[in-house]
Parts: sequence; C-alpha cells; structure tokens
Amino acid sequence: MDVRLPKRSFSDALAILERVIPTRSSNAILTQLWIESQPEGLLLRGSNGEIDLEITVPAEVAGEGARLVPGQLIGQVVRNLPGELVEMVLDGNELSIESGSFSTRLATSDPDEYPRFNFTGDELVRLPAAELARAIQRVRYAASNEDYRAIFRGVQVELHPGRLRAVASDGFRLALYDLARPLEEQKRFVIPARSADEIVKVLDRAEGEVSLGVEGGHLTLAAAGFRLAVALMEGEFPEYERVIPADFVFDARVDAAALRDSLKRVKVLADRNNHRVDLVFAGGELQVVAEGELGRGVERLEVEAPDDAEMTLAYNADYLLDALGPVSGTALLRFSGAASASVIQDAEDEGYLAVVVPLRV
Amino acid sequence: MDVRLPKRSFSDALAILERVIPTRSSNAILTQLWIESQPEGLLLRGSNGEIDLEITVPAEVAGEGARLVPGQLIGQVVRNLPGELVEMVLDGNELSIESGSFSTRLATSDPDEYPRFNFTGDELVRLPAAELARAIQRVRYAASNEDYRAIFRGVQVELHPGRLRAVASDGFRLALYDLARPLEEQKRFVIPARSADEIVKVLDRAEGEVSLGVEGGHLTLAAAGFRLAVALMEGEFPEYERVIPADFVFDARVDAAALRDSLKRVKVLADRNNHRVDLVFAGGELQVVAEGELGRGVERLEVEAPDDAEMTLAYNADYLLDALGPVSGTALLRFSGAASASVIQDAEDEGYLAVVVPLRV
Repeated sequence: MDVRLPKRSFSDALAILERVIPTRSSNAILTQLWIESQPEGLLLRGSNGEIDLEITVPAEVAGEGARLVPGQLIGQVVRNLPGELVEMVLDGNELSIESGSFSTRLATSDPDEYPRFNFTGDELVRLPAAELARAIQRVRYAASNEDYRAIFRGVQVELHPGRLRAVASDGFRLALYDLARPLEEQKRFVIPARSADEIVKVLDRAEGEVSLGVEGGHLTLAAAGFRLAVALMEGEFPEYERVIPADFVFDARVDAAALRDSLKRVKVLADRNNHRVDLVFAGGELQVVAEGELGRGVERLEVEAPDDAEMTLAYNADYLLDALGPVSGTALLRFSGAASASVIQDAEDEGYLAVVVPLRV
Repeated sequence: MDVRLPKRSFSDALAILERVIPTRSSNAILTQLWIESQPEGLLLRGSNGEIDLEITVPAEVAGEGARLVPGQLIGQVVRNLPGELVEMVLDGNELSIESGSFSTRLATSDPDEYPRFNFTGDELVRLPAAELARAIQRVRYAASNEDYRAIFRGVQVELHPGRLRAVASDGFRLALYDLARPLEEQKRFVIPARSADEIVKVLDRAEGEVSLGVEGGHLTLAAAGFRLAVALMEGEFPEYERVIPADFVFDARVDAAALRDSLKRVKVLADRNNHRVDLVFAGGELQVVAEGELGRGVERLEVEAPDDAEMTLAYNADYLLDALGPVSGTALLRFSGAASASVIQDAEDEGYLAVVVPLRV
C-alpha cells in the first residue's frame, strides 16, 4: 500500500481514534490501530472493547494492505509531522511515513487476531447527526457517576412515533430532550454515559445524516466517513415520568447566564456539606442567597415572576448549575412547591426539560 | 475601615497571594489573608512559612483596621464579583464586600497571632525587576526535583563585581545566566526552586527596579507595590565551573525552534528508558535520529557547521529540549567530543549558557 493524504485530516481522524484506543489494555491488541488501504481512502479502526470506531479518510491510494500499528504512537508521530502532506508506504512489515524533512519507519503487526467489529447493517432510523448530538449532550450531565444502580450510568434513547427522546437521571435529578422526528418505530436502549461522550465527539465532526441500527446488544451509528458501534447497557431504565411534576404553583423567567453567574458567586459562601443556595422569591423579585460558617452572600437578580409569588427554595447549587447548563437564553423555572420537584426548561428550545428536587431544610 | 478599589487590581493581587497562601496548613493561621487599610491603599499579606508576600493595592481608604480573612475564600469571592468597583467595610468583626447587585459578609479573625514577616530593610543591590526575572527563569529548569543532594533543588544567585549570575544544576546538566550590572558586592545565596518560581511570578507584574536584601537566612525583594521575603537554602552549592568545557572540537549554529520541533517529532520513536536522540553531523549536515523498539525516526535539519565535522552525539531528548528552551533565535551548539560535555548558548543573548552531557552509549 502507498497512501498520500493531508496531514490535517489524518491527524484529526487519529485524534478521535486515540480517545477510544486504550494506552494499556489487558487485551494488548486493543492498543493497536487498524490501518487499511481502500479504493476510497485510508480506513482506520480502533476499539476499547466497548466502542468500535471506524473512520475513512479521503486519500490517494495505490495497492492493498491492512496492518496494525501502535495507536498512541502513530497519533503522536502524525500530529508532529512538519509537512502538510503525508506519504505512507508499507514495505514488508514496516510502515514508512514521510512528511517534509522527516521520515520514520514503524514496526507493524498482523491484523488477523484483531477482534471483529460489532457493526450492524440494518438501519432503524436516520436523522441529522447534529440533532442527535445535541439531544445526548443536553442530558448527559444528569447521568450518575456512582456504581449504585448501574443503569443510571447510562443515557436512555427512546424512539417514539413522531419523536426521539434522550433521558438521563441519577435518581436525584433528571434531564430529558425531545427531538420532533417523523419516526414510526417504538424502541428504547441505554448507552453507557462514557460511550455517549464519544458518540457526541464523533457526531460533532460528522456532516449530514447519521443512521442508527440496534442488533445483538450493540448500537451502530453510521455516516459519511465513519461507523461507530457501542455496547448497550443491560437492564431496565426506571419509569421516570411520574417524577416530572404536572402542576405548578408559579413560573418564573430569568436570564440563564445571569442566574448561573450569580449561583457561582454565591455558592462560594455555601455550606461545604450540602452546597445549599436559596432562591428567594418575594414581591416579584428574586434573591440568590447562600450562608455558611465563613459568611453570607446575597445577590438580587432581574426576574419575571408573579408579584404574589412568595417562596424560598433551597437547592444544591451544583445541581441547579448543571440543570441550567444547556439553557442558552431565558430559563423557564416552574415551581411545584418548596418541598417538591422543580422543572427547568429552555424558553427558546421546548425540547429540553430538567427536574431538580429542592433540598429538605 | 472603608475601602473602595477596582475589582481588577484587587483580583490580580489576590491571584498572586493565593499561589502563596496554603489551602490547608498544620499552622492554620497561614490559610488566612492579612488585610489592612493604609493611607496609600489596601495592604494584603500572605505567607506559607517559606515565602512572605505583601502587596499594596492603590485604593480609596477611610479609617483604620487590620483583620484576617480566609485567603482562598476571599480570592474566589472577589474574582467572581459582578461589578467593576468593590467596596469593603469592616463592621465589627464582619467584613462586608459589595459590588454591583452582589453583597457578602465574611467572618474575620484577629491578626495578633499572625507570624512576623521576615523582611529586611537593608538594600544590598537594586536592579530592573524584569532582568532579575529573566535571569532566574532562564536557569530554573535545570534545578533538581530529587531529594538527593538537597542544595540542587535551589537556584543560586551570585553577585560579583560587574555582574549578577543565576545558576542551577541537578548534577547531570547545568544552566547559568549572567547579567552585566555595575555591582560592587561579592555574595551568593541559594533560593529554593519553588520559591524562585513565585519570585518570577511576582517580578513579572512589577514595574521598574527591585531592591534585594539578605539577612538572617532570608532574601527580601522590594519594589513599588510589593515586598517579598523568601527563606534561603542552607548548605554550599558545589563548585560547578570545572564542568563547563573550555575547549571545543567544533561549533554549530541552528535555529533553536526548528531543532526543538525536530526533537519533539523524533523523540516519539526514542527508547522509552533513556529517551535517546542522536545528533549526527556529517559533511556540514545535521540529522536528528531516534530509534526504539517501535521504529525509527530521522529528520534532516539546516545547520551551519564545518564541512569536516563528523560526529554522532547521543542525548536525553528532554535534557536537550530543556537546554534549548530559553533560546529564542539561533542556538550556538559547542561540542567538546562525543563523550564529554556540550555547551548550548543563545547566539543573540550572551548571558545564557547551558551544559548538557551526552549519554554514554
């Protein structure tokens, strides 16, 4: 094989693959990158056993061949190349890479033992890559980092007639994102949160539509230039609809960025144990208040709220910050009481909904 | 006390002090910031027991008073303030801070128990702050991180008639920087490398000249707006002049940035144990070569060297990179043989000199 390609596109593809390929692994072959010449370009494959990723980079290709090279090594080499073009030639078992005044020869190994990838060819649904990325990214924060109730460490994707939903929860808060799509299927599957992060990274560089297929416990995403398979989580995601309040005492609208800034300022003074900050509504005004052993911080914020709304709500400042994170403009805050769940929505994006439960005080 | 000052200058001063004030300390009072109103502004003090730092920030001041406040807390509060102006009022034992729509009250404590600072008023020498910072910063990398021979964990400053020298070594390599100054004193002292880093940080924001004084095992640096005292190291810095070669087989000149880039590219292939890269001179040309179990990398570099220079020199790539670090333009490489120390100088700054010993191969 003899391959010529731009350093930039090669290096960008390797950067994504390096996130997947482990530096060390009990299965040593997973530290290798699969590199193969194809008529349409250079095919690159990497896997950590949970995520299988294949990227095709457009290239001038002559001859055939597939070899394994150490994944992290080739990433470092290509990133540092001095020229804008890269030429790679397979010479026996050695891969020579030349660029500008630099040349290198890397030992390669045989790809026969490399694990089979879990791609499925069957398409369940197809949608714009950017929209799927947005849905997953908006809810990802609410997934749990704890081992307790493992299913909470995933992001559930639900296909319903007319919409796709992404939802995550750690049992204390919940985030969901609804994407209106002309779907007909009814299906749900749970993606491990760490794989969801990689999916978002890959989708961010995809253009156009992505095709989804589910088979044998794996989700396959395919778009122009890449295929990705992730092992899905086993187990049932709990019924969560009942924790979303349907009745509200009052609503408030506030600039999300201003409220986030205020929470960050005030939480510095919060109790170190529960990170408590209070939202104090009175006479159509909002104060953000925190008090700990070191002192007290107060900020008055502009808000749109009923004049007769009188309520003090205590939250974990970080949960409130997380829930406001995906809201870019005005946040719609909906309160069902000081001791029952609150809802945060994006006034300019009806797809997003977060549930945060006030602290018991 | 009632103090008004710009958030920016307050926050900048606190950022420097926060680097010194420990988050935790067996001597809990060191986690506190000393805050005092003075006729010329707000005086701030922090210490970690090794470094005593005092910064005066210009401010509108009314009334007197000195209190202690938790150092990291006030740093976080001030950095996040929403307004451009800050007003601080001491009300009993509470310090109120107001800025824009935000207000806070912090508990303070009594400064009686705070340790006495180790400032000396006697000036030994005075020189431009930026030049002293440059001298220390250029040699700092060569100081040791190992406990073995503790004195190597310091940067020695030497005053000689006509010059100031900063020098550091870990026993394997050495860096020195000579600053021509109309001095008359003869004196040497060793600053702990970590304190040297803080000195550079503080000098970087100083304008004009800095005054140096040494007394009771402490170095005091004073300039407009700050005073800094650091505990000096005990012990004798070894005689190092004899390791600097005086005779050379040949010299070469090379673009320092190009050589650094080439070393970074090639060292990826180097042996994982000794990080060996070779500089191969032949026929007036230079190749940078590394070879390890994963492959081999070669780069040809433009160099100005004698046509009859034929020599292969093996180095630890990181040592060579460190030694080239302070050289911005052309590096002058001076070789005394493949098995004896090499010298690296800055062709455009005669103050800098580094010694790197080739690997035994």
